[in-house]
Amino acid sequence: MSLIVQKYGGTSVGTVERIQAVAARVEQARAAGHQLVVVVSAMSGETDRLLNLARALNNPPPARELDALLSTGEQVTIGLLAMALEARGVPAVSFTGAQIPIVTDSAFNKARILEIDGTRVSAALAAGRVVVVAGFQGVDAGGSITTLGRGGSDTTAVALAAALKADECQIYTDVDGVYTTDPRIVPEARRLERITYEEMLEMASLGAKVLQIRSVEFASKYQVTLRVLSSFGDGPGTLITTEENIMEAALISGVTLNRDEAKITFLGLPDRPGVASTILGPVADANIEVDMIVQNSGADGSADFTFTVHRNEYDKALTICQATNGEMQARAVQGDKRIVKVSIVGVGMRSHAGIASRMFRVLAAEGVNIQMISTSEIKISVVIDEKYGELAVRILHSEFGLARDE
Amino acid sequence: MSLIVQKYGGTSVGTVERIQAVAARVEQARAAGHQLVVVVSAMSGETDRLLNLARALNNPPPARELDALLSTGEQVTIGLLAMALEARGVPAVSFTGAQIPIVTDSAFNKARILEIDGTRVSAALAAGRVVVVAGFQGVDAGGSITTLGRGGSDTTAVALAAALKADECQIYTDVDGVYTTDPRIVPEARRLERITYEEMLEMASLGAKVLQIRSVEFASKYQVTLRVLSSFGDGPGTLITTEENIMEAALISGVTLNRDEAKITFLGLPDRPGVASTILGPVADANIEVDMIVQNSGADGSADFTFTVHRNEYDKALTICQATNGEMQARAVQGDKRIVKVSIVGVGMRSHAGIASRMFRVLAAEGVNIQMISTSEIKISVVIDEKYGELAVRILHSEFGLARDE
Repeated sequence: MSLIVQKYGGTSVGTVERIQAVAARVEQARAAGHQLVVVVSAMSGETDRLLNLARALNNPPPARELDALLSTGEQVTIGLLAMALEARGVPAVSFTGAQIPIVTDSAFNKARILEIDGTRVSAALAAGRVVVVAGFQGVDAGGSITTLGRGGSDTTAVALAAALKADECQIYTDVDGVYTTDPRIVPEARRLERITYEEMLEMASLGAKVLQIRSVEFASKYQVTLRVLSSFGDGPGTLITTEENIMEAALISGVTLNRDEAKITFLGLPDRPGVASTILGPVADANIEVDMIVQNSGADGSADFTFTVHRNEYDKALTICQATNGEMQARAVQGDKRIVKVSIVGVGMRSHAGIASRMFRVLAAEGVNIQMISTSEIKISVVIDEKYGELAVRILHSEFGLARDE
Repeated sequence: MSLIVQKYGGTSVGTVERIQAVAARVEQARAAGHQLVVVVSAMSGETDRLLNLARALNNPPPARELDALLSTGEQVTIGLLAMALEARGVPAVSFTGAQIPIVTDSAFNKARILEIDGTRVSAALAAGRVVVVAGFQGVDAGGSITTLGRGGSDTTAVALAAALKADECQIYTDVDGVYTTDPRIVPEARRLERITYEEMLEMASLGAKVLQIRSVEFASKYQVTLRVLSSFGDGPGTLITTEENIMEAALISGVTLNRDEAKITFLGLPDRPGVASTILGPVADANIEVDMIVQNSGADGSADFTFTVHRNEYDKALTICQATNGEMQARAVQGDKRIVKVSIVGVGMRSHAGIASRMFRVLAAEGVNIQMISTSEIKISVVIDEKYGELAVRILHSEFGLARDE
């Protein structure tokens, strides 16, 4: 008998019929002999409905009261799912974050979990019940309701799995697993059977939005075995675990495409210390997040400096940089919104040399010019003209043998 | 500086605009120097929406989970009202029933309040905040959320007022007070300035549905001064208090009309002990509530027995009585749905003889035949043909000088 934590998102519990389908799935897992803890989100649309009510009264809404308000969304779902389970003859009991309790700090709207007391949950499980838990929420030391921020239900599930030492934490979504790349770009994209936490983190942050980054970090830290699978189908999904649990790591696990970036370049800067901080200081002060940063120093004592920001903040960032350049005296400040970032991710590249050059070679062979390069231990990213984005993904997906039939 | 508990029902907080109006009213009371505790219901329609979701999944819904679900309705309102107050610069803090805590027994869906810990509320008031409390809900000793049943928000307000020793408990509704009778029947009906708990109880149970009976009983028991007033106007409403606080009690405070009853009569019963329980036992076993009961024994050793039930349960009750009569051997069992109950209520009748005969005389003078009579210390009720209901109310309202200009 295993203890399994399942998590269903807003779409999976969005209607009465879907809640019934979740109940059927839970009943099935229980019939297979498992103990079940089920974490649910608010029904899709509910959080936005509540947010709109709040904003009509006070915008931005006071943080503590917003959490008291938003937490009702998941509380509705736990009551309904417990009822649906009981209707099928499955003994069930619901708990809010405060009832468990899931103790958090007092950072309303973006609280962090400090401690989970598993006593009540364990007692209910021992009594033969399915335990239904409100995701996304907790309670602070003073008894005020807190929320973990959007996507926090994944974190709740992983944290509960860690606290209860569950055998597996299953995240049900509207996709049937993690893919080697976006199937809309490459129809031959293949579902991955297994992937490491580190790869998943790189994939998620690069645009494969299956899981919240924070919950993957949490799972990695507490070694919780995660599984992403579809709440509408019956496949095994994708297992996310430690590298040791993956027998034969693939060279490359996936190719990702990020269309949300724009780049800004300082050309012909005087090559002296402090250039980077002089340029990026004012950008950070404006709360603009910077992704890639590349600096090249030429032999002539001048340097080129390029960084990328989210496309929505490009205009603001460019204006700031043009102002900064009054003191920098670069030859020119240029920007380009028509770029994309393409990355290959895989723990296998740690032990295999030559992956990067292979990547650059196949792109060059198809005439794709590389504008920026950035690498980490298990990831290589390039910035290219946006018109080559999908082509580059297809080339790399094929080159590294990721397609279904290979 | 007074401590005032205000309670606003679902209609008063039914939209964003109405919540803003409530916030304005609270701000005004605070500006007048009062400390404020505000109890609110779910936005109108919300409880029914949640009930419908529940019933679609499990009908009747399991009691504990239904309470977890329904309690979200008030939780939404407290968050929104606290935000609206903050938007006006009024420091506010919201509490659910569990956060206060309002401790109840574990009778889900119809819990009774056992204890209220006023510490958190008092601390927040001392810190200069308006305290916004979710009505209708509490928490049992095991930490499960409970609800007090429909209309329970009134009870929450009165119980809080008692626990905090508030100076006044104001119940805001969609009427501007308690009237001498239904103004739709008698346009000259007058708003009462003051009324005793006992009179209010008789008026409420007789069909003047302004306040929940239970909350009036609670107020009476703990001597909480109640005020019923409109959330849409500015009048002083009606004060509900002890007899000692009302300088000059009126002879009669009000006339009520109840159209929901039907009567069943056993004619010519053998006049022997046990008749009443033999007839009413099976009715009670079927969970049918009985209102008036009248028995007359004739000189011939036979008796007539009549009682009234809610019109919705008339058919069921009549069938039961016909079956019972197999052993009773009454001459006949008859029923009549076309009746109404008209009552006059007033603590003044305690000290004034002849009220009953005056009532019967004016009805007779207009040709209204009385079918049943029932009296209590401060109330006289008659059952008459429904076609005379409104006429009887007008006659009595005028006879006892209740109209506005008298």
